[in-house]
Amino acid sequence: MPYKFLLLTTLLWTCCAQADGTAPTDRATVGKDTLARVTGSSGAKVVDSLQDIAPELGRWIVEFGYGEVVSRPQLDLRTRELATVAALTALGTAQLQLRAHINGALNVGCKPEEVVEVIMQMAVYAGFPASLNGIAQAKEVFAERGVKIHPEQ
Amino acid sequence: MPYKFLLLTTLLWTCCAQADGTAPTDRATVGKDTLARVTGSSGAKVVDSLQDIAPELGRWIVEFGYGEVVSRPQLDLRTRELATVAALTALGTAQLQLRAHINGALNVGCKPEEVVEVIMQMAVYAGFPASLNGIAQAKEVFAERGVKIHPEQ
Amino acid sequence: MPYKFLLLTTLLWTCCAQADGTAPTDRATVGKDTLARVTGSSGAKVVDSLQDIAPELGRWIVEFGYGEVVSRPQLDLRTRELATVAALTALGTAQLQLRAHINGALNVGCKPEEVVEVIMQMAVYAGFPASLNGIAQAKEVFAERGVKIHPEQ
Amino acid sequence: MPYKFLLLTTLLWTCCAQADGTAPTDRATVGKDTLARVTGSSGAKVVDSLQDIAPELGRWIVEFGYGEVVSRPQLDLRTRELATVAALTALGTAQLQLRAHINGALNVGCKPEEVVEVIMQMAVYAGFPASLNGIAQAKEVFAERGVKIHPEQ
Amino acid sequence: MPYKFLLLTTLLWTCCAQADGTAPTDRATVGKDTLARVTGSSGAKVVDSLQDIAPELGRWIVEFGYGEVVSRPQLDLRTRELATVAALTALGTAQLQLRAHINGALNVGCKPEEVVEVIMQMAVYAGFPASLNGIAQAKEVFAERGVKIHPEQ
Amino acid sequence: MPYKFLLLTTLLWTCCAQADGTAPTDRATVGKDTLARVTGSSGAKVVDSLQDIAPELGRWIVEFGYGEVVSRPQLDLRTRELATVAALTALGTAQLQLRAHINGALNVGCKPEEVVEVIMQMAVYAGFPASLNGIAQAKEVFAERGVKIHPEQ
Repeated sequence: MPYKFLLLTTLLWTCCAQADGTAPTDRATVGKDTLARVTGSSGAKVVDSLQDIAPELGRWIVEFGYGEVVSRPQLDLRTRELATVAALTALGTAQLQLRAHINGALNVGCKPEEVVEVIMQMAVYAGFPASLNGIAQAKEVFAERGVKIHPEQ
Repeated sequence: MPYKFLLLTTLLWTCCAQADGTAPTDRATVGKDTLARVTGSSGAKVVDSLQDIAPELGRWIVEFGYGEVVSRPQLDLRTRELATVAALTALGTAQLQLRAHINGALNVGCKPEEVVEVIMQMAVYAGFPASLNGIAQAKEVFAERGVKIHPEQ
Repeated sequence: MPYKFLLLTTLLWTCCAQADGTAPTDRATVGKDTLARVTGSSGAKVVDSLQDIAPELGRWIVEFGYGEVVSRPQLDLRTRELATVAALTALGTAQLQLRAHINGALNVGCKPEEVVEVIMQMAVYAGFPASLNGIAQAKEVFAERGVKIHPEQ
Repeated sequence: MPYKFLLLTTLLWTCCAQADGTAPTDRATVGKDTLARVTGSSGAKVVDSLQDIAPELGRWIVEFGYGEVVSRPQLDLRTRELATVAALTALGTAQLQLRAHINGALNVGCKPEEVVEVIMQMAVYAGFPASLNGIAQAKEVFAERGVKIHPEQ
Repeated sequence: MPYKFLLLTTLLWTCCAQADGTAPTDRATVGKDTLARVTGSSGAKVVDSLQDIAPELGRWIVEFGYGEVVSRPQLDLRTRELATVAALTALGTAQLQLRAHINGALNVGCKPEEVVEVIMQMAVYAGFPASLNGIAQAKEVFAERGVKIHPEQ
Repeated sequence: MPYKFLLLTTLLWTCCAQADGTAPTDRATVGKDTLARVTGSSGAKVVDSLQDIAPELGRWIVEFGYGEVVSRPQLDLRTRELATVAALTALGTAQLQLRAHINGALNVGCKPEEVVEVIMQMAVYAGFPASLNGIAQAKEVFAERGVKIHPEQ
């Protein structure tokens, strides 16, 4: 009777998955994959570091943040990461996460000059201190990665 | 002797313009042009409305904001506008300007779905209230412009 | 053969549901229920209003915000709503949502005096303007609901 | 024996008042006076409006905010109001209070050009949207008061 | 005549104290006591550290912050501290003070799981970076205090 | 023919300079001079540190920030620096820049007591954590400079 089981499994899974468009397993898998594409192994380390204090927060980052939001096909990862760098530079309250997403932007194929440009642009919308602090993060990330930048004036 | 004058004019202008790479006239012209591309006529109206109270602020927006920053060729206007929409959604303190840049994003060729996507993404980085308020602005802008959106779930 | 089908359904559902502890249907049901407990019908209206522009954002609010976070049993809804009122008062960038959660706090059983007290306390941590704007929202909510407050000095 | 009573009263009052440099009555009197100097009658109206919901918040504004902080002689009221206008413009979360302190700055003798200048300066430190929203408040305040400004370019 | 003096002292003190409900000495005593209950000895150390630069700021924290606001009986200290942890997590601009109030919450009897829960909840209202930075503070505080947490998923 | 050249140079320069009231060389010169007056040599070091990553951001700080905004004669540098200290204290997202402007305030002639006073005042408008963090910066700056403060209570 195994083929019936398989059939039913597939059938039920499909139903289940269609209940809201994404089954939990889906979200976790897509989330881990997207997290890895954006952050390499560093995102997973952050999630792991939450295990002994707030493991659900880590699960939400993977399944909701990366599995449901950032992985949506409506916008490419390069634009998403530049938008995130812009927002975190403007907010100025999340320097560690800004650093992670400067790395993320480079990981998904943004040129360092584009990352710098978005941070510079924030001087207009959030003031020079926000931009200066963002550039300081970029400078450290670029140094760590050995990235050479060719600023055009 | 007019030809000598022309020669000198050109020569001196070039020197002057090269002092920092952008002559004032340049910045004003480039700024006005970029402002018009991004905002249509509404940016110029904002600048005009400052004439009787803070005209220099208007000049800075044109010459510095659009003439020196936003017009730089290192990043295309579509990405710049999406980055600005992201930042203003996250900050949550500049709803009028967010609205202007939702319009700006559409003016420079972003799809409404991309604008919505960037605002939705901010739920992860700045919380749901920031995203909800951003979507409320987008909804009004789209209604004003008769924009139809085809959300994909 | 229906009983076998039922058996399998249950079995598979359990597997599926255990993948991450919450099946999608679960999250949606729990989320809708919690949203209704906190906001009455107004939260569902906000979610509905997103259908033609950003339906996923509405789904995330129900399934993630209320289905995964706010519904967790580790903290009672009264404390959660007071904490949210505190945070939104301090941020000062989400007056509509603050209003919704002042209503939410009352809906889950907080006394109006407690809501006012938390908003007043924010004067210490976020300054008097933040508190004053929070109280202005509370005043309107209380008037709408016909709530009488007995401030003790 | 009334004169002895008076003597003792005075004596004790002085002791009491010196316990921390300011007796409660002192603080209230100094606070009301300073509030009136800065806001005319509008500050008192705000305090009154709190009577039926959060009267202590109103008392704190008078006794702590104006009676203990703003009334200190270490800084003149003009500089204090310009500093407050700068901070509220930069924060961008308290437009009503910004408006009150634009009025306050004018009430204590700041020139409208100085108020505008401080708001414009915030473009550098908090971005153009913050400045633009501040100028919009100033424009309305100046119109209400019939203030003519002579911007120098 | 000493007994008359005592009588008068008591009488006058009462009058004085009733002028606004709290005499300065009252506020200082209540404030110091509440500060100690919430922060142990660390709050007093912060106040002491202000003596040579801004002693009044320290006095305001004791007399206004803790003596007038936090000590009010309308809300228990546990709820107050959780509300403060929520607000400081959401603001993201006061990590030292967030840390002090994570300690404060534990000092007044909150369970570490409740503190973590409130910080996690802020992901919904202020975004994941705010929550992650809050959890990082909690992790360090718990390690310093040897607090074991039993996260339930 | 050199005198004719000089004549023409002057003539053309004047035209060019009048295009928007400030020639680029002007802005750079005025900006560098104002930056030096406010920050001593530390501002120039910040600008230099941007050369290999975002040199234009450095140029904007000099030419726009200091050459066009901060150097305007409508407000004296002392008031400007106190306003900036107020704003950066209130924002709480730019501690390095706050420190630079605490130094800047002292450099342009503000008394340390005035700097402290403005930071203390922010407790009313942005909450005690903002003030406490501002005072911590001031304390370190004063220690570095050997500044003695005489707080009056």
